[in-house]
Amino acid sequence: MTADKIALVGTGLIGRAWAVAFARGGRRVALWDAQPGAAAAALDLIPAMLDDLAEAGLLGGQAPAAVLARIEVAPELAAALEGAGYVQESAPEVLETKIEITAAIDELAGPEAVIASSTSGFVPSAFTETLPGRARCLVAHPINPPYLLPAVEIVPAPWTAPAAVDTARRVLEAVGQDTVVLCKELDGFVLNRLQAAVLCEAFRLVAEGYVSAADLDRAMAGGLGPRWSFMGPFETIDLNAPEGIRQYVERYEPLCQRLVPSQKVPCDWTAALDAGLEAARREALPKNGLGERQAWRDRRLMALAAHKHRAAREIGD
Amino acid sequence: MTADKIALVGTGLIGRAWAVAFARGGRRVALWDAQPGAAAAALDLIPAMLDDLAEAGLLGGQAPAAVLARIEVAPELAAALEGAGYVQESAPEVLETKIEITAAIDELAGPEAVIASSTSGFVPSAFTETLPGRARCLVAHPINPPYLLPAVEIVPAPWTAPAAVDTARRVLEAVGQDTVVLCKELDGFVLNRLQAAVLCEAFRLVAEGYVSAADLDRAMAGGLGPRWSFMGPFETIDLNAPEGIRQYVERYEPLCQRLVPSQKVPCDWTAALDAGLEAARREALPKNGLGERQAWRDRRLMALAAHKHRAAREIGD
Repeated sequence: MTADKIALVGTGLIGRAWAVAFARGGRRVALWDAQPGAAAAALDLIPAMLDDLAEAGLLGGQAPAAVLARIEVAPELAAALEGAGYVQESAPEVLETKIEITAAIDELAGPEAVIASSTSGFVPSAFTETLPGRARCLVAHPINPPYLLPAVEIVPAPWTAPAAVDTARRVLEAVGQDTVVLCKELDGFVLNRLQAAVLCEAFRLVAEGYVSAADLDRAMAGGLGPRWSFMGPFETIDLNAPEGIRQYVERYEPLCQRLVPSQKVPCDWTAALDAGLEAARREALPKNGLGERQAWRDRRLMALAAHKHRAAREIGD
Repeated sequence: MTADKIALVGTGLIGRAWAVAFARGGRRVALWDAQPGAAAAALDLIPAMLDDLAEAGLLGGQAPAAVLARIEVAPELAAALEGAGYVQESAPEVLETKIEITAAIDELAGPEAVIASSTSGFVPSAFTETLPGRARCLVAHPINPPYLLPAVEIVPAPWTAPAAVDTARRVLEAVGQDTVVLCKELDGFVLNRLQAAVLCEAFRLVAEGYVSAADLDRAMAGGLGPRWSFMGPFETIDLNAPEGIRQYVERYEPLCQRLVPSQKVPCDWTAALDAGLEAARREALPKNGLGERQAWRDRRLMALAAHKHRAAREIGD
């Protein structure tokens, strides 16, 4: 029983991205999916992903074939779990599915294995409460794709053992992920809550006619986003006043708190879409251009990840 | 009267950063500061800034001396304004000061000149209402430093002429800034409102014991921030569902709206600092290390700006 072998249950978009992240990090990876043939189909997609990463300098000098050789398809769930110290479940985001598959994993996995779910929408207590092994269950929510975006949120249920959290943190950090450990579970975790706060304000500003969606996007990409891509919001404000975060709060909390009441005004996102926001996006990017633009985003994200590695090495992290 | 000459009134941190941005963009720049000697002192600091930018490949191939030669110190406010088509005021953030200096500029500037304030904390109506030339006054709020972070918010007062907004947009875009045009004034503008939304949620999550400040920072820098550094939040969600933004909203608005009530709970930032947040930051970075870390941030920001220019050229923007 060792964290050297990782079992990946569910091999869709998220599952196969995990396969790349763990195999790149030197782990043996077993793939299994409840849908017959899905794991083999996922494996077929991985060589092209590895080639792209190698070209961007993001395989740590390893040959794609060497990384690929660590990934195998398991014929049965039990075989995938055999000898695995860490299980990452990435089944569809349906509560019943999560309950069933987690129970099956808990029944078949070795006694030491930690069982992590990739879910973004369910707190772990929602699908682990009745399991004999519920103390080893938690959420490890990646940002897609985890081989380019290192943050992973580790979320314990009230009954999750601290040792399981520690193991998940260690396993994930060992392959280069940056863990965000929640002390207790919370709907939306941290990342989606921060994103929701931004989106609520963004939809409201556009719906109330203050700014166009395109200009708001420029405010983020040309203003706030660059610093946040290598520092979080706390370090950003700590460095934005000569004497540090307390001085920043003394100076700027009054402004920020003054904005709070108007930021609480409800905003219906669907109504905002209907009122012109969707039309503005479709004018900027016609629907049949979405696929090409997604490919552009992936190339930019890969180039940015390579830049961040280089900058961390040359300038510090 | 031409936008070829820019008058910069106030030459502190923001004013001298503007000098670099405008001179790099080919404009003649006149510096003036109400404090005797301040403009000359600011000019002395600029060569080192230009050398750093040249080294990072951010002067567009120009020699630092050629850019520096476009910047001069004016002996009087009237001389600084003489022949300038665009005035950027960066005086201290004190309302009385803004009122006085804007009145002085309005009295002395040529009739065609647009008068823009760098203020982040005051809407333009707060300091332009009684001026004869109030129709040419607006806010052009930069993100510091504007030569690395291109976003500039253009905020009109109710009486600002649309032509003045157009001129400001044109002048700023011509030197490579990305303008964010507000259709009407609003406390906090766009950028500080988005930042405040993130900070309110971030302080609350730490104060309520869900996550450490360090881990929250990792959620941003390793999760949300990278995409936001080259796309805004709307383009991000438009590309995060196969069918675009409407499908994203159908899928995720319920989750986000579900979080809203708990995001409205008030949080006292100062109390959060007292309860451990400041201690956590000072443990991560002792107070006497702030200056060095600020220099690190500036180097990382410069490297990121160079990366973004390269990526835009090679992959597209």
